[in-house]
Formats: sequence, structure tokens, C-alpha cells
Amino acid sequence: MSERKKLPTAITRLLGIDHPILLAPMGGVSGGALAGAVSAAGGLGLIGAGYADPALGWGSDEWIGAEFDKAGNRSVGIGFITWALDKRPGALDAALEREPGAVMLSFGDIAPYAVKIRDAGAALICQVQTLRDAREAAAQGAQIVVAQGTEAGGHGADRATLPLVPAVADAVAPVPVAAAGGIADGRGLAAALVLGAEAALIGTRFWATPEALGHENQKALIERSGGDDTLRTRVFDTARRLVWPEPWTGRAIRNAFSDRWHGRDDELRAEGPALQERFFAAQREGHTDTAVTFAGEGLDLIADRPGAGALVERIVAEAIEALAAAPRPG
Amino acid sequence: MSERKKLPTAITRLLGIDHPILLAPMGGVSGGALAGAVSAAGGLGLIGAGYADPALGWGSDEWIGAEFDKAGNRSVGIGFITWALDKRPGALDAALEREPGAVMLSFGDIAPYAVKIRDAGAALICQVQTLRDAREAAAQGAQIVVAQGTEAGGHGADRATLPLVPAVADAVAPVPVAAAGGIADGRGLAAALVLGAEAALIGTRFWATPEALGHENQKALIERSGGDDTLRTRVFDTARRLVWPEPWTGRAIRNAFSDRWHGRDDELRAEGPALQERFFAAQREGHTDTAVTFAGEGLDLIADRPGAGALVERIVAEAIEALAAAPRPG
Repeated sequence: MSERKKLPTAITRLLGIDHPILLAPMGGVSGGALAGAVSAAGGLGLIGAGYADPALGWGSDEWIGAEFDKAGNRSVGIGFITWALDKRPGALDAALEREPGAVMLSFGDIAPYAVKIRDAGAALICQVQTLRDAREAAAQGAQIVVAQGTEAGGHGADRATLPLVPAVADAVAPVPVAAAGGIADGRGLAAALVLGAEAALIGTRFWATPEALGHENQKALIERSGGDDTLRTRVFDTARRLVWPEPWTGRAIRNAFSDRWHGRDDELRAEGPALQERFFAAQREGHTDTAVTFAGEGLDLIADRPGAGALVERIVAEAIEALAAAPRPG
Repeated sequence: MSERKKLPTAITRLLGIDHPILLAPMGGVSGGALAGAVSAAGGLGLIGAGYADPALGWGSDEWIGAEFDKAGNRSVGIGFITWALDKRPGALDAALEREPGAVMLSFGDIAPYAVKIRDAGAALICQVQTLRDAREAAAQGAQIVVAQGTEAGGHGADRATLPLVPAVADAVAPVPVAAAGGIADGRGLAAALVLGAEAALIGTRFWATPEALGHENQKALIERSGGDDTLRTRVFDTARRLVWPEPWTGRAIRNAFSDRWHGRDDELRAEGPALQERFFAAQREGHTDTAVTFAGEGLDLIADRPGAGALVERIVAEAIEALAAAPRPG
């Protein structure tokens, strides 16, 4: 086995991994193949079980089991949307049966699940979007707090990564913090580390890999879009009849559908189930003018589709280079 | 004179300064005393002339001259709101007579001013909020491009600092980039540098200093508020009858006034001049429940009121420490 240069932090030690890179559990995108590849390369892969809702075509107990199988014998974790888990708590049991290395909960109160997850031997990772919620997550027993900025793809809130990370690190110490939102290369990972994070949680960048789920057209769209092309919106949730609590919205690549319907959720709801069916069909068929492609502002830094393992190695090498190239006092 | 540890970058060399710290030209807050103190400590102070509009009580040609006087014989720069300068281009001439080290233009087309500024021997700094505008600024001859994230206090737009900075650095190279938005301590400066910026432009953190203009009550509010307490809004501009072009809004600390009027700009306008007068009175008298206190999400990192010069030194020392403490490959 070749010598792998490690970048050790409190989080790599806690999780027993080589590199401070966590795969964001992108719902329906981070499957077992992608999670397994990230773990094999020395990061931690997290399967994205999202709503744990069979109606979406992914996230059911059976889907979860199949994705763990695809991760092979690599140690991977799994992520859920907390408020959705409240409706289907059995999904957590299905996941814990597979002995995940970590369970990540986002968007809701982790109190009902914290003890069960830790008792199962999984690391409890909790993603937050405000300083207030960071304090609450630490109080509830989170072992890693993910501070997620508004530039993140998919669901999130309004605060930005750069000032949120050091504030959360100060507030929850000694609980280690991972930075999420807008990180798509080694410069972003290096920035996360000097801000006081002990790892970066990376999503969109890993969608543009062969191992990711999701339609080919969406991967191509991610490759050619830029950070100026995204927006935070409720419109794609409204189209899918998903009712998200405040304050969370989803960041996605603008398209003809969002241009038409953004901010007109009441009208969109009134369109009824036919529109919903057309939307789901567009999603299945990869019609990116209608379908939602959740993506973060790191899009400018994504212009190829490397294998996920090679990507982990590249980001680590770039981070090491960025840190080494930083100005030195003189 | 004691030995000062410098942190040299392309921007410190271009400007002939010791540290990669630029004072944001906060309108009516960054006066000559603050700008002079930042320059004296080895950064670059920029006077905030904003709208150059005498009606606001600051920014007139006379005010500009007086503030340059207060900076003493330190080399300082000056910043304007570009679309406002279009209405009062004479303000630029008044500033250039004082031989500023740099002129910073934000929010508009720099084409009418670029040649005049460079011909006067001032460094031309242009602040942008999107990758598209960054490319345009470089094409128009900006010598430093400031990539400003949405977490910045005061006027700005929607993209966040962490992913915007490396994208802009890639797009405008070899023009050097400064990072703005959410930077309030040395961790933020270190992050800016590893992201590919050659300096940080820092605003809110410098407001909480004795040298800054603005009311005592506002400085106290900044000291005790947190990053969860801000919002981007048009409401304070509407109250002041300032008509900002799209897409710019102002980030400020939420207060009773914004709680009541945010998103109700049409109704607010209909209140007429009496409300405007009450608003300006509140601003003069430091009634922070009504007055606007522009501030960024870095508020969590601000809990004291050091002298501006000591603050420059502290941020540099913290940045050096953050870079030295970053994980090393092993």
C-alpha cells in the first residue's frame, strides 16, 4: 500500500479517518457507491437518506439497506433530515442496524435521537445554521457540530460560512466543528481549517463524480454552471409538496421553473397534483429546465468530473499547498 | 522604532503597506481619524465618503477635506458609492486634490472614473459582489478587486465570501483580490489569504473603536450583538429616501424599526417626510431602536473596543497564529 499523506485534526482522530473531509449526505445523490469511495480515500462518506420517504424514490428502509451494501465493507455514515425523521423514526433503526460510523442530523431537534445514536456506537454529527442552534446541538450531545453557511447547496438558512465557523468553534469548544457551505476545493478546506474547523463537509463538488446518484444531465449542469447562477428558494419544495419549517430554504441552480414560480408558492400550490406529477417526471427524466438541481455557490470551482477518491486526494493536496503558500511573517 | 512583523502579499507591495488589512470605507463611520490610525499601524485606511451627499451630514466636499486633515500626514485612501458619484462627480475631484493613496469604488460602473483615478496616481480599488462584475472591474482597469460577500455589513448583495473569493481570484488573475465580508479577526484574515486573496477589507470590526465616527450607542450595540441578529434589507434606505439600484441591499442589526417595516417599503414611503425626519433625528441622537446600525455577520467576534492601531496589530498576530496552528500533513 502506498504512503498516504494524512491531514490530521481532532475530527480525523475522533472518526478514525485520514483526511478532514466529510461527504455531505446529499439526499438521493450521496448513495453507497459515493459514500464508500470517499471513505476508501480516507474521508468519511455519508449516505443521504434525507426524508426517509419512499414516495420520493429514495430514502426508504430498503433503499438505505441497499446503499449500505453498495458501500461495501467501508465504514460510512448516514444523514437524515431531523424533522422528517420525526414522522418516520423507524428509518433510524434501519440505519443503526447497519452499524454506521456516524449519523448526521440536520434541520430540527436532535434530542429524541441523540442517546440512541451514541448508544449504538455511531458518532453523532449535528448540522446547524445559527450560533443559537450550535449551542443547543452541543448541549444535546452532538460530538461534531457542522456549521453550515448559506452558500451551501440544498437546504440551509441565511448565515454565511466564513464568519459562522469561528463563532461556532468558540461557542461549542471543545466539541469539534466541521465547516459546510461553499467548499469545493483545497483552498476552501484550508480556509475552514484556519477558521477553527477541524474538517470540511463537502456536497456539490462530489455530485460531479461518476459515483454520485442523480441524472447525468444534472451532473453536466453542475459542471457548466457558476456560483452567480444559484438562488435560495422554497419553490422546488412547494412543487414536490414538501412542507419545510422556517427558516430553511433550498439553494439550487436557477432554471426556467424557478424563474417562473419563485416567490409564487401559493399559486404553485393551487396548480394541483398534475403539476407535481410533471415535476417528478422531469426529475426522473433529467429535464433540468424544470427539475431541481440543488447546488451551492462553490459551482465556479467545479469544471470536471473526477472519481470521488481522486477528488478527495486532490482537495487534500490543494489544501496542503494553500497552507504552505500562505504569506509568512517577515 | 520597534520591529514590526509584516505579513507581505501582492497587495501590501502594490500599496506600499506592511499588513494586508484595508479599512472598509464605511460611509460616515470611517473618518480621517480611523483611516489615519489604520494606516499608521501598517494597513490602509480608507475614508468613507459614501454618497458624497451633504444632506446626510457627512460626505460633502468640505467633510472630505476635513477628514483628510484628521488623517494627518498618513497616506490614506477614500471610498465612494459609484452610482452616487455619477450624480456628484465633483466629489472625486475634491478627493483627488488630497492625493489619496487609493480610491475605492463600489456599486456601479467604474468606467467614467478609472482613467482619472489612475492618472492621479491613486490605486484604483473596485469592490464587486458577483463573478460577472469582477471580470468587468478587471477589464475596466481595477488594480485591486474586492470580492465582497453577503455577510458584509452595509450595502452588498447575495453571494458569500468563502466561495466568491477563490472564484474571483481565478477569474481576474493577475489582478490581486481582497476579501470582504465577515472578517473580524485573524482567523478570517488567514482564511482570506489561503482562499487566494492578498488582503482583507474589514469594516464592522473597526466601527467598535474609539477612532470611528458614529454614535456611542451604536458602538455599544455592535459590541453586544451577534451574527444571528442581522438582516439584509432595503428598509433603512427607504426611510432615508435613498433609492438603491438592484441588486444591492444593506445588512444591519435588526431593531424595532426593521421588525416593523422590513418588506413594507411601499407603505413606509407613503408615510411621507415626517417619518424621514424622525428617522434622521433618531440617527443623530443614537436611538438604536430606530436608527440604522449597519453591521456584518462577524459581530460574534466583536466584544471589545480597542484602539484601531492595536486592532490591526492584533488581527495580524492572530492570522499568523492561525496559519501556524493549521494542521500539517504527516
